[in-house]
Amino acid sequence: MSKLFPSAAAAVADVFSGATVGVAAFGPMRNRPTDLVEALSQRPGIKDLTAVVISFRYVEELASAGQLGRLVTSFGGSAYNTRNASAALIRSGALVFEPCPQGIMAERLRAGAAGIPAFYSPVGVDTLVAAGKERRRFGDRDFILEAAIRPDFGFVRAMKADESGNLGGLGSTINFHPTMAAASRVTIAEVDEIVPVGAIAPEEVRVPAIYVDRIVQHDRSRDADRETDDIRFAVRQPRPPDDDRPGLSPELMALRAAQLLKPGQYVNLGIGIPVLVGSFVGPESGVMLHGENGIIGYGPQPGDDEDAWFYYDAQGRPVSILPGASFFSSLEAFTMGRGGHLDVVILGGLQVSAHGDLANWWAPYMAAGAMGGAMDLCTDVPELIVLMEHVTRDGKPKILERCTYPLTAAGCVTRVITDLALIEVTPEGLRLRELAPGVTPAYVQERTEARLTVAPDCREMAL
Amino acid sequence: MSKLFPSAAAAVADVFSGATVGVAAFGPMRNRPTDLVEALSQRPGIKDLTAVVISFRYVEELASAGQLGRLVTSFGGSAYNTRNASAALIRSGALVFEPCPQGIMAERLRAGAAGIPAFYSPVGVDTLVAAGKERRRFGDRDFILEAAIRPDFGFVRAMKADESGNLGGLGSTINFHPTMAAASRVTIAEVDEIVPVGAIAPEEVRVPAIYVDRIVQHDRSRDADRETDDIRFAVRQPRPPDDDRPGLSPELMALRAAQLLKPGQYVNLGIGIPVLVGSFVGPESGVMLHGENGIIGYGPQPGDDEDAWFYYDAQGRPVSILPGASFFSSLEAFTMGRGGHLDVVILGGLQVSAHGDLANWWAPYMAAGAMGGAMDLCTDVPELIVLMEHVTRDGKPKILERCTYPLTAAGCVTRVITDLALIEVTPEGLRLRELAPGVTPAYVQERTEARLTVAPDCREMAL
Repeated sequence: MSKLFPSAAAAVADVFSGATVGVAAFGPMRNRPTDLVEALSQRPGIKDLTAVVISFRYVEELASAGQLGRLVTSFGGSAYNTRNASAALIRSGALVFEPCPQGIMAERLRAGAAGIPAFYSPVGVDTLVAAGKERRRFGDRDFILEAAIRPDFGFVRAMKADESGNLGGLGSTINFHPTMAAASRVTIAEVDEIVPVGAIAPEEVRVPAIYVDRIVQHDRSRDADRETDDIRFAVRQPRPPDDDRPGLSPELMALRAAQLLKPGQYVNLGIGIPVLVGSFVGPESGVMLHGENGIIGYGPQPGDDEDAWFYYDAQGRPVSILPGASFFSSLEAFTMGRGGHLDVVILGGLQVSAHGDLANWWAPYMAAGAMGGAMDLCTDVPELIVLMEHVTRDGKPKILERCTYPLTAAGCVTRVITDLALIEVTPEGLRLRELAPGVTPAYVQERTEARLTVAPDCREMAL
Repeated sequence: MSKLFPSAAAAVADVFSGATVGVAAFGPMRNRPTDLVEALSQRPGIKDLTAVVISFRYVEELASAGQLGRLVTSFGGSAYNTRNASAALIRSGALVFEPCPQGIMAERLRAGAAGIPAFYSPVGVDTLVAAGKERRRFGDRDFILEAAIRPDFGFVRAMKADESGNLGGLGSTINFHPTMAAASRVTIAEVDEIVPVGAIAPEEVRVPAIYVDRIVQHDRSRDADRETDDIRFAVRQPRPPDDDRPGLSPELMALRAAQLLKPGQYVNLGIGIPVLVGSFVGPESGVMLHGENGIIGYGPQPGDDEDAWFYYDAQGRPVSILPGASFFSSLEAFTMGRGGHLDVVILGGLQVSAHGDLANWWAPYMAAGAMGGAMDLCTDVPELIVLMEHVTRDGKPKILERCTYPLTAAGCVTRVITDLALIEVTPEGLRLRELAPGVTPAYVQERTEARLTVAPDCREMAL
């Protein structure tokens, strides 16, 4: 019984209406099972699928074809103005959106793979994610009960398969693939190359064949036709030249954050301004950057090196690899985060409260929001730095008594660095520690809803 | 802050009385952190340690030194007549024995690593393992609540470390090491070789440095002094030549089991007679053998090849590696078992009941027993074959109405192959399908406590 299927269409021919379909992908097009998704989208009459996927982008064709009834995801579509089918369907109510923190998605899939029906999770306890879930105390902390996910079909992508189903590959291409393959009742692998059994060394197998049921050769001829919708995360545009308000540029905010890092620390950088911190932590800093796709030890963006496309960070951006780097699954990457193994996490923010609550995944202008892996990363890290503009585009404070947007996590923030100030979160409230050049404590307080205490040694930032 | 420590003694100098110490090891001496265990055993005044380890053998020096208060293990010492310190202490009540199925030990450690306080497990539900644990139904099945384990110190062994703490190695040497390293608050790695940062390729890292706090060079000069107590599993001795009772030899029992296997199946072989099945499934059979240490695709024992000592099966026996093989952690190996990914499991047995209950880990002549990974492997496998002698050494039936020894799992057995017969477990009870040459149904029934139905097509085994 060969596992080789002649085409993506043949491999997805028995996917049925109402099935749960997991799609593993993280980053560039070449890491996504594009042929399988397309082939499924072309099957008439298929509907009410539940898609389990870290981003809506990887299943847009299924949404457009009206095949989705439920979308379990960590990126449900962030803005009203994106032209995505799933966001429109979510807003109209035709598609049920189940927000799932990215690391908990990996964990729920793994539970499914391992015969575990449910587990208690520290992630999202005081947030929307906890809605309707059992809450229970262990030790001095509350947790919520999360259920396993066992997809009927799992689509994965790999650089290489042997004919028995062992999958191999390099760099950052592991991410969700082993976990999805293990969790799914029928796993279908779309691969760039099929090699004879024995051509992948046993130590190089990334997904053991026992988890792979069907193999399909990826069709490169179709790649050029596909939109390259690789996710781009824009850092706020530079201010216009006639803007003479005081305050740091995003680059200087990032520099200040970088100065706080110490040699030997493992540090995760979130989407937005935090990404810029990477430019200031070279190999000589001794800081090791961690990406939730499954990488430690990446460095600055290299030149265009198409041959090394498989080295990328959690945003899908090409990166260089520093000595001492390692690659692993996203499951492992979030184990590091949730288990308290990271030293520092630096995230963007929409709102921060006086008690260190963080809201950074949903605002009213968004559809389903973009929680990504932030909730997992906030859960148990000793130092959580938020890097954000001090006020919204229309001048409203973002540092508030209470967050009005849904929380990412309660009481998790230790410091906030904005274009105006460095503020510490203490048990007594927010303490103003440093000021941007040309800014006074009163100027900062005027733009802050929460009450600030000025530290006795408050000073101008030394950049 | 270098992670390199000058000696094992220096690396364990802060282990404190009452600490939980996890010791990762599986198989041969060269996969065990022997220097660290020895150095700890030589620290005076240390007591009340909780050891978390798959076998008592790996912490015998701590038991002998009177340092253990609690032993969480899957192999607690099987026979009264073994000269082991922990078994004696368990019998005297001086050492608390907490039986933990091997796969659930991996799972509990992983939960600790990942910030998960507890999870529901299908393993050991109707057994002693469930004692005192919350029981809960999900779907149509009962599960028990298992708590995370987070050792204060974790001892691991690796072939190689870079100076930043990344660990590398080959073959079967992964097993419990990544999971123990991730779970422990302070992880100490004993390694054969220390190489510069960058000398282990990022794809070859088996334990990322983020999980490793201290590195110690293993001292080879001490190896020769150590007893080579590598676990040996004896298959029952051949009968004396004057024994003319009818019945198959263990080899023929194994052959009959091998005949039941189909190409493409993933099969786990337990300790005892099941091991012999391996001799009858060569590469041409298309059967892939799975070992819970973390291997798929092993073949017959090779000649003595000291250079390839790192290829071994779940019993620590050297094996050859067939095309299509893969290596992974024990955590993953048990995920395969518990999650229903294996096709066939073949185990030894002490007792089997009319309802297919299996007891194979404790008998009155044992101290703490040897549950190993059997409970995990029994949990969700479609075909569970028990290979055992039909009666005990003193002639008592082993196939009973009800098991009198503690269960491994209830209702899990599908077929029993003994020296006398092949018996099928059906919803209506036990059905006699095949007879050993020279044996009648009446002869089998006389030696069987449970009632047997003779299948209409019952016949002599074709071997």
